[in-house]
Amino acid sequence: MGIKLYGVAMSTATQRALACLYEKEADFEFVTVDMKSGEHKNELFLKKNPFGQVPAMEDGEITLFESRAISQFVAHTFMAQGTQFIFPQDKKKMSGIAPWMEVESTKFDPIASKLVYECMYKPMFGRGTPDEAVVAQLEEDLCKVLDVYEARLGECAYLSGDDFGLPDLHHLPTINCIMKIDSKKIIEARPNVSKWAATILARPSWTKVLAQN
Amino acid sequence: MGIKLYGVAMSTATQRALACLYEKEADFEFVTVDMKSGEHKNELFLKKNPFGQVPAMEDGEITLFESRAISQFVAHTFMAQGTQFIFPQDKKKMSGIAPWMEVESTKFDPIASKLVYECMYKPMFGRGTPDEAVVAQLEEDLCKVLDVYEARLGECAYLSGDDFGLPDLHHLPTINCIMKIDSKKIIEARPNVSKWAATILARPSWTKVLAQN
Ligand SMILES: N[C@@H](CCC(=O)N[C@@H](CS)C(=O)NCC(=O)O)C(=O)O
Ligand SMILES: N[C@@H](CCC(=O)N[C@@H](CS)C(=O)NCC(=O)O)C(=O)O
Repeated sequence: MGIKLYGVAMSTATQRALACLYEKEADFEFVTVDMKSGEHKNELFLKKNPFGQVPAMEDGEITLFESRAISQFVAHTFMAQGTQFIFPQDKKKMSGIAPWMEVESTKFDPIASKLVYECMYKPMFGRGTPDEAVVAQLEEDLCKVLDVYEARLGECAYLSGDDFGLPDLHHLPTINCIMKIDSKKIIEARPNVSKWAATILARPSWTKVLAQN
Repeated sequence: MGIKLYGVAMSTATQRALACLYEKEADFEFVTVDMKSGEHKNELFLKKNPFGQVPAMEDGEITLFESRAISQFVAHTFMAQGTQFIFPQDKKKMSGIAPWMEVESTKFDPIASKLVYECMYKPMFGRGTPDEAVVAQLEEDLCKVLDVYEARLGECAYLSGDDFGLPDLHHLPTINCIMKIDSKKIIEARPNVSKWAATILARPSWTKVLAQN
């Protein structure tokens, strides 16, 4: 049986799941979904993810979706190997990790993903040029989040605490995109965030994700 | 020492944390934050939550924030009492729960919260009347999510599976608000969603949350 990850190498959500599989040194097969032909909306794929989005994962009889659910599932399943992400017996450590996982998905990502769409995917897909007013507003909103990160990363090396954790990992795909657009200036303006971004982007797991393209 | 939950009884995020504390039959003290005077932005509170939002929680030496991080922390901490939410040994059950937790926070809540703001809080805070075009778009977007819920809830009684779980609990505060505005029609138009909403809103834990007001 074994693990199958269904996705597209250039999809940020797929990359998030991939990064975790590599960190956990998990054996898995990567199955490319032909999104151009709409494979993610066909009946078979909708059984894996009823929202018709990548990634989805199979582990024998088990099916799941949502990149952050996959990463947490993988982190639990491979508890004994690779980078340690889950500390069920250490309440203190867990309490440092859990909030930053929510911060990424509910505060950082909604803004950062829109910014990346506007500056990178919109032109790439021939849907026009970035709307400057929209970009300025998104950057302003993201700066407020990054200011909190800057303070946190002055206290510990990672958002997760002293060690690289899932909250950091979840940022990888979007941070990677931001570093390719003009908005990277808002990262570079913050020394702790800038150092953190460089550190997480240098993880061997992330190099493997990029090599998938 | 013991647990202290800092928040405001009418805040949806505070209610999410409260609902979990009641489900787990946890002993705790509720500390009202005086948001009108800006207590959530003062130095002392920012040490509990650097984003200056309610809720925040203290458990002895441990501090944490983000309602969904608090609920998961509480679910772990009180593993042996109240409603069972975490199944570390049951991969199958976990894989049914984890995706729906992400769906709530990244697909349902961003739309539902805006809808509740527009129709309920905007008029309540004297910021004008609901913008009809905005409401129509939000309802259309939310219907797409609810259509997937309708199918899921045709297969099992709860989004989490056969038993009430954290993904269901996390919906409570926002579903409660939607049932008070005209948009409740999009819930009522879907028999399975409608039944589920009534079932979760009838939980004794939720009655206790509302009694807090
Ligand atoms: N919250 C989801 C987002 C998944 C997502 O947006 N996937 C995109 C590619 S990055 C997709 O499949 N888009 C096609 C669609 O939405 O129809 C996750 O983290 O897995
Ligand atoms: N994602 C956060 C959201 C918290 C939140 O938005 N809290 C609101 C009250 S419901 C608040 O404190 N607003 C004041 C502010 O943002 O300044 C959570 O779930 O805890």
